[in-house]
Parts: sequence; C-alpha cells; structure tokens
Amino acid sequence: VKLAELGEFGLIDRIAQKVGPATGVSLGIGDDAAVTVPTPRMVSLTTTDMLVEGVHFDLSYCDPATLGRKSLAVNLSDLAAMGAIPRHCFLSLAIPPACAVEFIDQFSTALLALAEQHGVSLVGGDTCSSPAGLVVNIALVGEQEPQRVITRRGARPGDLVCVTGTLGDAALGLALLRQGERQGEAVRRQLDPEPRVGEGVALAQAGLPTAMIDISDGLLADLGHILRQSAVGACLELARLPLSPAYRAAFPLLTAADFSLALSGGEDYELLFTIPPHRLADLQALADRFRVPVTTIGAITADHGLRLLDRDGRQLPATSQGFNHFAPERASAG
Amino acid sequence: VKLAELGEFGLIDRIAQKVGPATGVSLGIGDDAAVTVPTPRMVSLTTTDMLVEGVHFDLSYCDPATLGRKSLAVNLSDLAAMGAIPRHCFLSLAIPPACAVEFIDQFSTALLALAEQHGVSLVGGDTCSSPAGLVVNIALVGEQEPQRVITRRGARPGDLVCVTGTLGDAALGLALLRQGERQGEAVRRQLDPEPRVGEGVALAQAGLPTAMIDISDGLLADLGHILRQSAVGACLELARLPLSPAYRAAFPLLTAADFSLALSGGEDYELLFTIPPHRLADLQALADRFRVPVTTIGAITADHGLRLLDRDGRQLPATSQGFNHFAPERASAG
Repeated sequence: VKLAELGEFGLIDRIAQKVGPATGVSLGIGDDAAVTVPTPRMVSLTTTDMLVEGVHFDLSYCDPATLGRKSLAVNLSDLAAMGAIPRHCFLSLAIPPACAVEFIDQFSTALLALAEQHGVSLVGGDTCSSPAGLVVNIALVGEQEPQRVITRRGARPGDLVCVTGTLGDAALGLALLRQGERQGEAVRRQLDPEPRVGEGVALAQAGLPTAMIDISDGLLADLGHILRQSAVGACLELARLPLSPAYRAAFPLLTAADFSLALSGGEDYELLFTIPPHRLADLQALADRFRVPVTTIGAITADHGLRLLDRDGRQLPATSQGFNHFAPERASAG
Repeated sequence: VKLAELGEFGLIDRIAQKVGPATGVSLGIGDDAAVTVPTPRMVSLTTTDMLVEGVHFDLSYCDPATLGRKSLAVNLSDLAAMGAIPRHCFLSLAIPPACAVEFIDQFSTALLALAEQHGVSLVGGDTCSSPAGLVVNIALVGEQEPQRVITRRGARPGDLVCVTGTLGDAALGLALLRQGERQGEAVRRQLDPEPRVGEGVALAQAGLPTAMIDISDGLLADLGHILRQSAVGACLELARLPLSPAYRAAFPLLTAADFSLALSGGEDYELLFTIPPHRLADLQALADRFRVPVTTIGAITADHGLRLLDRDGRQLPATSQGFNHFAPERASAG
C-alpha cells in the first residue's frame, strides 16, 4: 500500500485503530480537538519535542520502530524530569512521498506500545506530506499534584547532586554508529533510550528532589540549567561519575579527557537531580526499587559556577558544553 | 544577528521575552515542561497542526508575520469548531540554516499578538535546525464545560446546516497567488485567515449547534465528516452558498461549475454547524453580534449521502472532495 492510495484520512484511521482504551479521555482521534478530563486538584504538565530527519535521526541506522519509541521517549523523559505522570500524547508527522506505509505502521506500532507501557494514550495529531525528510512532533501531557512538581529552580547549597544510570553512553553510541558500528549497549542507548518515568515519578512522590532535569544536552549543560535557575553553583567529582562497562571498555585508560562524553555528550536521558543531604538514606531506600543505580556525583555550592575535581582533588577547567541547535561547531546529533 | 550566533537557548529567550503575563500558568517557558492549572469542572481540548514549507506555505508570497498568524489561526479555528476557549499554546520550530533571526522575530511577534488577542499564552515549545525548509508545529489547549463541547457527532435529521462568513475565497486566493496576484480580499483570506473564535465559543455557550466543524478541507469534505460521524445525510442548495464580492467578481456568470471552489476549496476556516430548526431565531439573534454573517445553506436528512440542488431545484452530482494530503492529484495547498 502506498501513502497516496491510503490518503491522509486512511492513514489517520490506520493509526487510530491501534490505539487502546484510554482513561480520562472523552473524545480521542477524529474530531477537531481531543477532549480530556483533568484529574481534580492536579496541574497539567505539557512538553513538546520535534525530531527532524538529518538532524535528530538518520534512517540509515535507525529503524522505524526504534524511531517511534525514541520520539515518545524523549518527551516521556521531559515529564519524568518534572515528576509528572504521563497521560495523553499528540503526534504530528510530515511524511516524505517516498515513505512506505509499512514504515509508518512500524513507527506507530512501536510508539503506541511504549505509550501503553507508560499508561499514555494517543488522542490526536496531524499528518501531512513533507517535500524533504520525515519530521515528527510529539506533545505529551501529564499530571501531578502541584506540590509534587519538581522544577529546575529549587537546588540549595549543600544539596547533593545525583544522577540515575550511567553517563556518556548515548554520545559514545553515536560516535560508534558514525564509525559503522551497529551493535552493542552504547549504540542501543543512542538509538533506543529508556526514559526514567517510574524513577522520576517516585522521586517526586517521595518529595526528595529540590531540583530535577533530564540529561538531553549533556551533564554539564543540563546541570548548568539547574545552577542558573537556582542561582547556585556546584562541585562535581570526576571519579564519581557513573560509567558503563561499554564506556570503560571504550576508554580503558580513563584519562581526564576520556570523561568528555560523560560530561558533555547528550541524549543519555538520565535524571539529574539534587536532594538535601539529610534525605540521602531515603533516596537509597527508594533507589533500591529502581531499574538503574543512583549515584551521588557532587554537591551544590553557594559560590556560583561549576567546579570539577579530578581523582586527586585537583580542579579541572569546566565549560557547560552540550548540544546546542544552530551552533556552527556541531551540526547534527544522533 | 545570525541564528548560529544566537544559539538555541538565545532564540528561546528571545521569543520568551515577548510573552506577556498569563493566567492559569504556574510555570511557562524554561523548564522541561510547562505547568498549567486546569479550571475546575472544565475539560481540556487540545489540537495540533503542522505547517511545512512547500506544502502549506510558500515563502515567496507569504511574509513571516502572516505565516506566524496563520500558524496559530488554523489551531484557533479547530478549537472554535469545538466551542472551546483557547488558553495555552506550544510552538515547535525546525528552522533552516539560511533563516534570519529577523524572520523568526517577525513570525513570533505576529503569532504572539494574535495569541494575546485571543487570551492565549505561549508556555512552551521546541526549536531545532532543519536541513530543508521551515516546519512549524503548534499545539493549542483550550477549555470548556463538558456539556458545552460541540463535536461532529450530533447532527439530526431536520437540523439546519449553517455556515459563517463566505466560502471559496481562500481557494480563489491561492489560485490568484499562483497567477502572480498579491493583493485583494481573496488573497488575504488565503494568507491570513481569521479564525471564528468568538463565534464558535458564543454558539457553544448558547447551546445552539448539534454538530460543528471548521472548513479547512472544503465545505463538502468537512460536511462529509459531520454526516459520517452523525450517521445522517444532507441536502444543500447551491443558491444559498454565501459568496463574497471577490468571488462573484471572479465568477460573474456563476454557472454550476463556478461553485467548485466554494464547495471544495479548502482553508476558508469558517464554521460549519447544524442547529435544530426551532432554534433559528435564537441563532439569528446571536449572529447579529458576529463580525460575519451566518447563512443557512441546507438541511440534514435521514437519508445518508449528500444531495446538492441547483437554483432550479435540480440535483447535481456531489462528491465530498477537499484537500487530502498524500493524494496524487493535488500536491500542494496554500
């Protein structure tokens, strides 16, 4: 089947048929707008991310199912970083004429499977043709009690800086993909990130983080957002950065320069958060139930700016580099 | 200033600085998600539309300010068609490297002015680079009391079919633009449509429409959605179709074929709705306060299908054609 035969409404029907039953939805796909029922006394949290072929993904090494999952995952990660429970999503697609219906089938089936896994229902969207590459935009809406929402603004001097999972794998995976590698844990982390939804919600429900963000632009860049918005500084210890076996295998000597991807590589989609030091035992008890470890990598300081200490306690130069669209030095991410 | 110098965060700041104070927003641009406070006892209505350069707009005849307004207007029109009060919007932009910051300034200033005019605040979004043309995606959230929401499903036999404004102007404008024309009412209707927000909300608050849709794909196509989803048919009278002076000037003979654009041309962004016949006086009283006329163009029938009567009461062949993305016969809209 070709898209031209199926038509816009045929394609929408085809996607809509795969959507399972939903809660909190009075009217899903098929009218001018979706109608959803907010849970009383909760606030709405909404995030949106656009993924552009040739900028965010390369179809020569990203299959449609993986792309479908990643498109939703990056949004799930944003809501997780606020501690919000994801509820409804909206999918906009600009599709090149050469794109097969099977591509959209695999893309949407995988996206919807990940959505269902997280209790998210697809309730609306838009499809149109694209003269150039594929463009995906997702808007994701979640909910939380207002007092549970975690922003980037609450970090205080003395707070511990913590991170889920391991750092730098996605950037390592991108480098490996560009060298022709198609297998392995780092490649998987780049192509098919797992958003820390359960972890983010559990941290927020426990009232632990004073500030939280997901690592999409790189540890230093994203910590920089917390520092700036909280008007504080931080001191990180290089030796504490959680690194995967894949990362350690790629950088066996682990010189200071070898930490570059862990510090500045983007797209790990781990949670970076701060907690008051007296809550560390609570965090450890909670983190025992997480699928990934939680590591304390430093502390918030009253002095502004970011200090980075090597294994011998010497200060290293730190700049908060990360991925920045439009920056000339780096034209494309994974 | 070039986008590369400004960077992604510089551009976001530049847009965020223009956003005025908002109600119902606890956290706007600048975190992982926006936090909004739903009005108690109201449902949320969300719509999203993607506009792609070379498909939905042509920058050789569409200036940035007009494009900014249209990007939001098409979403406002969707919410108006449900009777929803628009509240918050999210803007995603994929921007080609050659695009000047001034373009984005003019685009966003005009978009935000239209937003403010309708009480809408920009609370989030995403910006990235695009290897090909400009892509705009807007998600717009509104609210309404659940019993006031108008869907496409409630039309009943005997209901009158009504439409705001005049039909076919936007399609006529597109044809004129392609012939090199840059001025006039039809061209303006194509480039800078006025969503019927106040009209849609007033109709819903008065409980008048049994079904409603906005005319984006063409009268017959959009009426077709109401007929299918309400499981009814309709009979329209050609002589009743509201035509503008510009349309009548373009088709002075007004043969049956000359109604083609009014019947099947897209992007008028007028409201098409059905009302019970005993509410006609109520509609007329309400419509006296509208900026555009409201015209009764036919009636809903128990027989499925659409009948079209010419000025002599003879039946014409009717197909519900309208704009369909991916359809090979028509590759691009205005």
